[in-house]
Amino acid sequence: MPLLPDGLERLTQELGRLPGVGPKTAQRLALHVVGWAPEQSRRLEQALAEVRDGVGRCAACGFIAESGHRCAICRAAGRDAGLVCVVAGATDVLAIERSGGYRGLYHVLGGTLSPIDGVGPDSLRVDGLITRVREGGVREVIVATDADVEGEATASYLASVLGPLGVILTRPAHGLPVGGELAYADERTVAQALSGRRPV
Amino acid sequence: MPLLPDGLERLTQELGRLPGVGPKTAQRLALHVVGWAPEQSRRLEQALAEVRDGVGRCAACGFIAESGHRCAICRAAGRDAGLVCVVAGATDVLAIERSGGYRGLYHVLGGTLSPIDGVGPDSLRVDGLITRVREGGVREVIVATDADVEGEATASYLASVLGPLGVILTRPAHGLPVGGELAYADERTVAQALSGRRPV
Repeated sequence: MPLLPDGLERLTQELGRLPGVGPKTAQRLALHVVGWAPEQSRRLEQALAEVRDGVGRCAACGFIAESGHRCAICRAAGRDAGLVCVVAGATDVLAIERSGGYRGLYHVLGGTLSPIDGVGPDSLRVDGLITRVREGGVREVIVATDADVEGEATASYLASVLGPLGVILTRPAHGLPVGGELAYADERTVAQALSGRRPV
Repeated sequence: MPLLPDGLERLTQELGRLPGVGPKTAQRLALHVVGWAPEQSRRLEQALAEVRDGVGRCAACGFIAESGHRCAICRAAGRDAGLVCVVAGATDVLAIERSGGYRGLYHVLGGTLSPIDGVGPDSLRVDGLITRVREGGVREVIVATDADVEGEATASYLASVLGPLGVILTRPAHGLPVGGELAYADERTVAQALSGRRPV
């Protein structure tokens, strides 16, 4: 006879599908949920249902949006539609928006190229980006994928498909973090900071 | 205008009520859920509803059980009802059951005494334990709360209320972990192992 009720085992299994939640954490979370007041569980169930039915991707840029609508950034007045920043995921958009220093639009790829994991250009929102540039009005595309192997490979690939369309392609500057100390920066960051040095 | 749809913010907030899930993790989980197929979200919603309506605590021992039923351990044939092992939580029961070395019953307190956090005897399943012992048939109570401050305080308190009832009270043996090396054991464990030494 199993030690725990079937319902609890099922909840453990479903919670284990969340990223970063292994079997042991999933069981700990499920056991915690048993102690919740019914209203607490209902609030989570309702929030899940609301996201399932009412939240999706912006048809224009791939950022999070209410289903069937453009995202808050694409709809906002006063943003520079000639400038498109390409990022891997929605969390990158949130990080750039927190900086407060960007007034252009975005294009969320939904990942980076990774042949090992079977992620090719077709798995990413690349066609939509090409269409946006082809339709005109985009002056510059900032490719802000991470500076790791997949991010650089993705940037190279985008340069090869967008370059012929006559748009300006840029990458964000790499260098020493503001407020960081040179002595504690990693070698690649120091090298990038020196090779990208600018006149005072 | 908020950057993210209300539904996503609500989901982030509700996921943040899970233990060990801070605001940043909650947002990461919520953004991941947006990418789920509707059936995947429905499975989690249904598992939550099933636990909300169908899973609770065993009225006899406090372990996880189907609502309105005794738990699988209390209902099992061939367990020694004269032996009750008192633990803080359901995960302790699971650990002891995994060991395969125990055939008695349990009593799950639902925590340990912690005056700082406002957890007194009334917040724990202590009355139920006293009733079980008073009703007779319990020969020995093993107090298996952890050997930390709260666990030891809880064990002392239980000894004070159960001692007068004439039941045998024991604590699990502390000592060197099986397969562990003396050189790597912490001081308190080594001290316990030496003071609790047994003839070969």
